[in-house]
Amino acid sequence: MTNPSRLFLFAGGSHGKWQVQSMNTITGAPLPIITHLHVYSEGESVPEKDLLWTLRGITSNERYVNQEEKKELIAKQEGLGRPHAVQGALIPIRKKPEWWALTQEKRREIFEESSKHIQIGMKALPAIARRLHHCRDLSSFEPFDFLTWFEFAPEETATFDQLVADLRATPEWDYVDREIDIRLVLS
Amino acid sequence: MTNPSRLFLFAGGSHGKWQVQSMNTITGAPLPIITHLHVYSEGESVPEKDLLWTLRGITSNERYVNQEEKKELIAKQEGLGRPHAVQGALIPIRKKPEWWALTQEKRREIFEESSKHIQIGMKALPAIARRLHHCRDLSSFEPFDFLTWFEFAPEETATFDQLVADLRATPEWDYVDREIDIRLVLS
Repeated sequence: MTNPSRLFLFAGGSHGKWQVQSMNTITGAPLPIITHLHVYSEGESVPEKDLLWTLRGITSNERYVNQEEKKELIAKQEGLGRPHAVQGALIPIRKKPEWWALTQEKRREIFEESSKHIQIGMKALPAIARRLHHCRDLSSFEPFDFLTWFEFAPEETATFDQLVADLRATPEWDYVDREIDIRLVLS
Repeated sequence: MTNPSRLFLFAGGSHGKWQVQSMNTITGAPLPIITHLHVYSEGESVPEKDLLWTLRGITSNERYVNQEEKKELIAKQEGLGRPHAVQGALIPIRKKPEWWALTQEKRREIFEESSKHIQIGMKALPAIARRLHHCRDLSSFEPFDFLTWFEFAPEETATFDQLVADLRATPEWDYVDREIDIRLVLS
């Protein structure tokens, strides 16, 4: 296989590399409270012991950014695993069926033209590193549509708080019907 | 669960509702020759006996059609399972990594503005009924990106041949690096 694995598993329980600092249910049904989280790549064996839940997501092709935005993102963003980025966040999100019934151009219009999702995210670069995982097309019954994973330095916590607050105030977020905000620190 | 299953499994072997009339490898590696195919929905039990291969795909939200095209498609298309539509076709396709690295707007440009994919498909409506399944985001290592399933009446075979010939002549098809054309009849 020449392609790297794009599938990741987020395992919540009482063990793992990341220690939970807070779990806030922003919208919809909560997830069971955990104390630790571990991120597995496809093929890694996941111990079932002490697990309370697992969420799966797959990285995929870009759905909304245009060429200019893509260039700017690539130029500004930094990767995961930076030594100083010991703060983590996992934000699982589900969007309403109404969102998925929209056409691509209408979704793009809400996503960027009216909600400025890409521009809001750009403001947090390179401080906040991010990896988006899609769940919706893994199976028919995934509990979330997206899992976004973030890493940043402790002194950038306010930047991160601003980022999520700005996004939650957008028209795009009217389509979110489930969102959990899990903050973590490397243990 | 209020949502219906969106995941389908195409099982090829020596048993099944659909009898294979021909299997043509258009591009890339072939699939093992089968005599029969059966289509399963998620949750249906799949007998492993006499199976040569299975392909999985999931129906999903529209990626390219605009509002006007969507309306026209909905007005013209007919569903699967029409009693007279005893001819079937399964066409698994994979696209090159170059395709997936393009931005959404560039893919739409190739898909419709230069290749007229939607307009070509529209010409075959309502004769040819169709269901598109996505595979790419089911896992990291699916053998195809899309499985398209077609049903039509025997007298519309020429319409179907024209449809696939027209699509294969488009710039979009330069990005296809694996394609198998499997023709079937209800047995």
